[in-house]
Amino acid sequence: MLTTDNMRLRMERMVRDTQESLCQAVAEMDGTRFRCDTWTRAEGGGGESRVLQDGNVFEKAGVNVSVVSGKMSPEAARSALGRARKLPDGPAEFFATGISVVIHPHNPMAPSAHANYRYFEFVGEANDPIWWFGGGADLSPSYFIREDAEHFHRVHKARCDCHDLSYYPRFKKWCDEYFFIAHREERRGVGGIFFDNLNDRDQDQLFQFVSSCARAFQMAYLPIVEKRKDLPFTETQKQWQGIRRGRYVEFNLLYDRGTSFGLRTGGRTESILMSLPLTGRWEEERPLEIDSPEARTVDVLRCPQEWV
Amino acid sequence: MLTTDNMRLRMERMVRDTQESLCQAVAEMDGTRFRCDTWTRAEGGGGESRVLQDGNVFEKAGVNVSVVSGKMSPEAARSALGRARKLPDGPAEFFATGISVVIHPHNPMAPSAHANYRYFEFVGEANDPIWWFGGGADLSPSYFIREDAEHFHRVHKARCDCHDLSYYPRFKKWCDEYFFIAHREERRGVGGIFFDNLNDRDQDQLFQFVSSCARAFQMAYLPIVEKRKDLPFTETQKQWQGIRRGRYVEFNLLYDRGTSFGLRTGGRTESILMSLPLTGRWEEERPLEIDSPEARTVDVLRCPQEWV
Repeated sequence: MLTTDNMRLRMERMVRDTQESLCQAVAEMDGTRFRCDTWTRAEGGGGESRVLQDGNVFEKAGVNVSVVSGKMSPEAARSALGRARKLPDGPAEFFATGISVVIHPHNPMAPSAHANYRYFEFVGEANDPIWWFGGGADLSPSYFIREDAEHFHRVHKARCDCHDLSYYPRFKKWCDEYFFIAHREERRGVGGIFFDNLNDRDQDQLFQFVSSCARAFQMAYLPIVEKRKDLPFTETQKQWQGIRRGRYVEFNLLYDRGTSFGLRTGGRTESILMSLPLTGRWEEERPLEIDSPEARTVDVLRCPQEWV
Repeated sequence: MLTTDNMRLRMERMVRDTQESLCQAVAEMDGTRFRCDTWTRAEGGGGESRVLQDGNVFEKAGVNVSVVSGKMSPEAARSALGRARKLPDGPAEFFATGISVVIHPHNPMAPSAHANYRYFEFVGEANDPIWWFGGGADLSPSYFIREDAEHFHRVHKARCDCHDLSYYPRFKKWCDEYFFIAHREERRGVGGIFFDNLNDRDQDQLFQFVSSCARAFQMAYLPIVEKRKDLPFTETQKQWQGIRRGRYVEFNLLYDRGTSFGLRTGGRTESILMSLPLTGRWEEERPLEIDSPEARTVDVLRCPQEWV
């Protein structure tokens, strides 16, 4: 038994609790229910996928928890590790647990949001565990509304600041860099926080930090949806939302490391691609009207700002 | 001047003629017109994109021609070359021209189709040109109809057989392999032909072969659309078409070499992503009804067949 077994269990409980509480809140706002799908993995572990589709408020909301372990090919391990730490030769023993959330509301004035918090562990040389936390949360509006971006960032900054004043500025910047759609020269959204390979301090402290962020997501996001879900909108605005969701699809399939890593290493396709919106749209490109809400949104996606 | 300059011009004329003739036929069937966009590239060359969107018959049809040249980074050149032929060190001088066609009709009973024919050239050691042709055409139905697949394959087989009896079986198999969506364990469609790095005989003979295939596309595809464009369909069938088009998006963004190569090497984003359908759909997965038209289609996409 590894010394980190305890962390495995604590993290699993945290992500399952977060799933439960978030799904309750989303289902209550929507007035419908999630469909649950519990799955196991031949190589070890499993998870629970919850999806709410075609609801009253939400077009698609997915909240996944997974707890998986087994052996990983040296190539996959190197790609997951993503830095110079050494693993024994041959297939690498790993453990990973996390929660992954993607929510796409119907109303084009209500932004989409994503969150993911995970704990990863490899058994290194001499059974020495190599572990880290990763995660973050980000907001993707089709129509930029300043106070929503500010609220989302403010909640996350407060959680970061409790643990380390350097976290929010670092993780905010990391988020802006990570969610960059290079071929469009724009970001997927207005950002939030993003971090990976976090193991620079005591495991318990980092667990507290990650738990605190995971719990914060609900407060950071749902009040925004509550405010925007019943705003009037036109068919043209709905089509613009479709185009923005097309960009969301482009990011996830072309750039997201979790997606390509998951698909390449034989992850569960339905869970991995649950992040995709119900629909995406790819129109022939037309120039945006100067100073229109669409153009102002794209300006913000092109040039990240400080929100708090 | 390279000895292959003549082929550059002949190929360019061929792809431009094919674009003109195909667009006329598509616009006539649709009763609307293409929008044309002529572009140039700072590094050399340019192209013409033609798009018909939200027509009467076609949801989106794109027919692109490009004629580009310049210097390519050694990494990009190696990736384009895709085999052990040697280039001089440093940036590689290249020339490429081709036509690329993607057509998505409205009616879910009418299949989408794609074709691409191209000529590629590098200036190798001692100014020796390294050249090849590539291309192919393939059909992607949302609802499998046997006679359509057979017709599409029959036309292409006839063109192949005129040049080399080994071509159709080789290129049909290559197509089935290329358009495989690994994480879905299914193909993008019912195939057609696909070939790359073709330079195994006289340049003029290969040019004749490629020209013949490029001209054949119209006859292989448009009669199918003519037959299916007015068939009745339900909202549920339209949604299934959206799901199939979501898979189309997945293939293009995750697996297509032209797409990732183009985006990575700073190609023209609008032209490269013109291949994406107007809309794609990602629903929570539900089991298909046994022996339903949807399930029968997926069976065919899972297990390639011989059509002629």
